[in-house]
Amino acid sequence: MTDLRVNGNRLLFQLDELAKIGAIDGGGVCRLAFSREDKAGRDYIEARMRALGLDVSIDGIGNMLGIRAGTEPGPVVVTGSHTDTVGTGGRYDGSLGVLAGLEVIKVLNEAGVKTRHPIGVISFVNEEGVRFMPDMMGSLFLRGDLTIEEARAIAGIDGSTIGQNLDQQDYAGKDDFSTLDIGAFIELHIEQGPVLEAQNLQIGIVDRVQGITWLAYTFKGSANHAGATPMDMRHDAGYAAGALAYRVRHMAAGMGQGQRATIGSINLSPNLINVIAQEASVTVDLRNPNAERLAEAEAQVERIAQQIAEEAKVVVNRKVLAHVAPETFDPACVNAIKRSVDVLGYSSTRLISGAAHDAQILASRWPAAMIFVPSKDGISHNVQEYTAPVHLEAGANVLLHTLVDIAGV
Amino acid sequence: MTDLRVNGNRLLFQLDELAKIGAIDGGGVCRLAFSREDKAGRDYIEARMRALGLDVSIDGIGNMLGIRAGTEPGPVVVTGSHTDTVGTGGRYDGSLGVLAGLEVIKVLNEAGVKTRHPIGVISFVNEEGVRFMPDMMGSLFLRGDLTIEEARAIAGIDGSTIGQNLDQQDYAGKDDFSTLDIGAFIELHIEQGPVLEAQNLQIGIVDRVQGITWLAYTFKGSANHAGATPMDMRHDAGYAAGALAYRVRHMAAGMGQGQRATIGSINLSPNLINVIAQEASVTVDLRNPNAERLAEAEAQVERIAQQIAEEAKVVVNRKVLAHVAPETFDPACVNAIKRSVDVLGYSSTRLISGAAHDAQILASRWPAAMIFVPSKDGISHNVQEYTAPVHLEAGANVLLHTLVDIAGV
Repeated sequence: MTDLRVNGNRLLFQLDELAKIGAIDGGGVCRLAFSREDKAGRDYIEARMRALGLDVSIDGIGNMLGIRAGTEPGPVVVTGSHTDTVGTGGRYDGSLGVLAGLEVIKVLNEAGVKTRHPIGVISFVNEEGVRFMPDMMGSLFLRGDLTIEEARAIAGIDGSTIGQNLDQQDYAGKDDFSTLDIGAFIELHIEQGPVLEAQNLQIGIVDRVQGITWLAYTFKGSANHAGATPMDMRHDAGYAAGALAYRVRHMAAGMGQGQRATIGSINLSPNLINVIAQEASVTVDLRNPNAERLAEAEAQVERIAQQIAEEAKVVVNRKVLAHVAPETFDPACVNAIKRSVDVLGYSSTRLISGAAHDAQILASRWPAAMIFVPSKDGISHNVQEYTAPVHLEAGANVLLHTLVDIAGV
Repeated sequence: MTDLRVNGNRLLFQLDELAKIGAIDGGGVCRLAFSREDKAGRDYIEARMRALGLDVSIDGIGNMLGIRAGTEPGPVVVTGSHTDTVGTGGRYDGSLGVLAGLEVIKVLNEAGVKTRHPIGVISFVNEEGVRFMPDMMGSLFLRGDLTIEEARAIAGIDGSTIGQNLDQQDYAGKDDFSTLDIGAFIELHIEQGPVLEAQNLQIGIVDRVQGITWLAYTFKGSANHAGATPMDMRHDAGYAAGALAYRVRHMAAGMGQGQRATIGSINLSPNLINVIAQEASVTVDLRNPNAERLAEAEAQVERIAQQIAEEAKVVVNRKVLAHVAPETFDPACVNAIKRSVDVLGYSSTRLISGAAHDAQILASRWPAAMIFVPSKDGISHNVQEYTAPVHLEAGANVLLHTLVDIAGV
């Protein structure tokens, strides 16, 4: 059993084939959730599942599950990820997790391996949340966080609802996953960060996922003349935006211990060279694997914003756009991954996931963990996203052995 | 002669009438240079000049001059400003200077006052430089900085050239101002800053104009995942932009002595909440009445930008977009304004102009100075631009007495 290996070239071929669906310039992919391209991608996955002899079922929002029976009934050991992408996505984010799961099934079929528990491969719908918020919608629906009526009523950036898109694409299934007995959920994913590459390691054993808080700060001042307004008579929203970006970065560096903070978006109005900005909108992305420290970071940012508003004589306003609690993965699942890595002889390290994933949503209800493979230059959500074939193969081999370990033979 | 006063209501009526041409919501005006609305505004001024019996001439770029003869030939004492506006302009910026000049002529006509030297009212073309760069183009042309061929070849933001617009609007005249003998140029303008209002004063006697440097900084980093990228592995162009806005403001405050610095425009790319910015463009507007200190400010900004680039591990690039040298106004002209203010009994202070004006361009070749009246909340280039009628009238009275003082009776 320890000699079992995936077929790396077959996995690469599958990634190439799926990347043709919604292909965009530069080698990237655009399969926005519930779009025609997304449906074509799902159809490709469904055909593969059926070709592998899996028992395929699809729920009301479009999550697709293929199950390979075990020798005993009981909880299903599930793997998978998603096949939707951002507008200018890469070919690995999400797709790798689904296709590697199917490659594992293929290997088990070829080798005639029978596992004790059934193994399932799931393709979650709308993980990216670009067209329809929130992200990780498929796994939230599976966990029971929103009803089918609520999900169908959600309107996207183009005004159409998920219900309309589901009907138009013949997307929704009739199956109900709400009583599905999930023994464990293991997700293989690209790191989307630079740590593994920088340390020249093959595998990240992900034992935690950071919590996320998204804040939107708005500063309101006065649009006065850049030349005619003395420095001490300004109400400069542009300065306030800059000061927030400057100080929040230093705050995060000062907190250390995995605190991350990003000001990725700044919009000034009127945004002219010779007019003091009247209004500034600034987003703050905070991440921390520890819930208390994340809350402390939020409080610190708020104190900083208030100080800046006072100093710049502007009015400040805060909106919480999103909050996802940190999650600690199941130690048994993490250990199963670690055993597989050791059997296969790969170099590895424990990692905290910086990005949010379906596994994080499932982890609060079922045992779960993740396997990461390196991302070149940490680039993701970009056509330049790249993971070397040798790493893709290694990740799929770890997934194979972890699933067999947990499902039992 | 000291009892001579303008008719405030007549001046207000003229401002109302002119503001109807290109009127926009909120009481503002849009007469972009060389547009149909701009031409209609000019036609209004030309008709007024002719009704006042002025000898009207128009040069090849569209500067319009109306001359009231003196009892002796010799240098013309000129006043005026411009009637073009920014896209969402107010009704006072520029228009006040031209219409107050015409009101002065009307008063002199009514009172039968003959001045020794002729008095001229000029309406400069394209002072704002919004559609066609550079700004203050009409006065630059008058000063001899660009030829008619160079001016006509300039392409605007919509791709059309000034030449095409001049021909289409039948805008250009056949007169040549290059040998015009200007004895003095006095420009009445709203302050466009908050100083007079804050000090509760009626008149600003402008004895200097700040120098201006416009810089565009570009920072290039890497668009990495906000969650998955450790703080010390980032190449964060958004942080660099914020740090520049933060530090340049404090640099200006530290330099004191009239140094002003504004970051009015920041553009991040891709400008998303959860992606570290790959690129940031930041403009810096520097002003100082002293050329050496302005150069020192430029050098300090550059040092700061280099430090930030090193700290943020991004590449920095600088472009100089514009540079206008500081100008000291003619002491004799400034004294003539001061004498008029004293005769009229208005409260006043010496001021440095923060904004650039046609008078600044003319001052390097001819004696010149400016009169400022208060701007409510310092707001300009905005439909909310406002100067109280009592201040408009006071400014026009100072202009009247200054012109008579210099032209002689």
